[in-house]
Amino acid sequence: MTDVTSSTNLYAEVQQFYATQMQRLDSVDVEGYAATFTDDAEFIHSPGQPGSHTRDGIIRDVYKVAEQFKTDPQQRRHWFNMVNLEPLDDGSIKSTVYCLVVKNRPGQKPDFVSCVVNDILVRVDGALLTQYRRVDYD
Amino acid sequence: MTDVTSSTNLYAEVQQFYATQMQRLDSVDVEGYAATFTDDAEFIHSPGQPGSHTRDGIIRDVYKVAEQFKTDPQQRRHWFNMVNLEPLDDGSIKSTVYCLVVKNRPGQKPDFVSCVVNDILVRVDGALLTQYRRVDYD
Amino acid sequence: MTDVTSSTNLYAEVQQFYATQMQRLDSVDVEGYAATFTDDAEFIHSPGQPGSHTRDGIIRDVYKVAEQFKTDPQQRRHWFNMVNLEPLDDGSIKSTVYCLVVKNRPGQKPDFVSCVVNDILVRVDGALLTQYRRVDYD
Repeated sequence: MTDVTSSTNLYAEVQQFYATQMQRLDSVDVEGYAATFTDDAEFIHSPGQPGSHTRDGIIRDVYKVAEQFKTDPQQRRHWFNMVNLEPLDDGSIKSTVYCLVVKNRPGQKPDFVSCVVNDILVRVDGALLTQYRRVDYD
Repeated sequence: MTDVTSSTNLYAEVQQFYATQMQRLDSVDVEGYAATFTDDAEFIHSPGQPGSHTRDGIIRDVYKVAEQFKTDPQQRRHWFNMVNLEPLDDGSIKSTVYCLVVKNRPGQKPDFVSCVVNDILVRVDGALLTQYRRVDYD
Repeated sequence: MTDVTSSTNLYAEVQQFYATQMQRLDSVDVEGYAATFTDDAEFIHSPGQPGSHTRDGIIRDVYKVAEQFKTDPQQRRHWFNMVNLEPLDDGSIKSTVYCLVVKNRPGQKPDFVSCVVNDILVRVDGALLTQYRRVDYD
């Protein structure tokens, strides 16, 4: 339990978690990406629109998004930075993170989308998972 | 004092500090932002121009900058990265950091400004604070 | 040896290492930059083209690249992020990192290049060094 209480070790662990999570998404390892969420996760991609629920729901919705890239091929890179952690009383961790989505289309300069990721992270069997995510676009 | 001497724990602590500091600035929590500087801080925004001095001075100058955004609305996001720390003999920490200011204006693609932040961080009552900051623009 | 086995301390150490390494490159401290590679390092800048070998080779090739900037002056900033570490059985560390090269030309908006850095890091006399680097461009 040392990692949970030591905020400095936790900080590196969260950064490694996000690197793994988003590199999986960007390499279209959809199942591997969904495995970084809890079974009962809620993921609100766009405020005002229905979110994804459960790992199966996330898998379905990510494949749906990937469909669009067939007609608009691009290598996306999700950059998370300025990770702001706040351990909550129930043992979960509130994480507020800046995100830049870098969209690389063949022969074009990168395109950027700026947003803020609002996460609740929990520890399940020792490993960090995302239980809740809401993305707010700038 | 463990955190001060262990550069790896210090590293995460500085990253968390910068995340807190700049998320406050970007959400226009001006007083909260100024509270991350020492009482006697010096903040040189633009080389060759007079800097801000003391927390009160920083508050005044940040509000002045915020005035401009009334006619040019934008959500700014300050990204700090490539944090390079060098503990100094007097117990303070020299921190040299790359910064991208992401300016999000309604309906437009993000605009970027690249700069380098040169900080001296000190520990006051256990917490990190910025004592000196000079921003060099690329 | 604590740092080697504690992945969370290692994480901060790698981030500090990359900050030092790339700030040296961006300030054209070519010898200092090359010193962050092992004597026998291999550095593949562009897949399909011959890489740089050994510190001397890296110095020679970086000076060659710097030549181009005489007719196209620019302050480059190499941003590494989303650091994904995987300790290998032989004690080395596989590091997969997102990189944005920010090119700042006088009077122009920054230009960006997105790539992925694939490193093998090793510890020599206690310090991290890059033994192998392959850059894949998006």
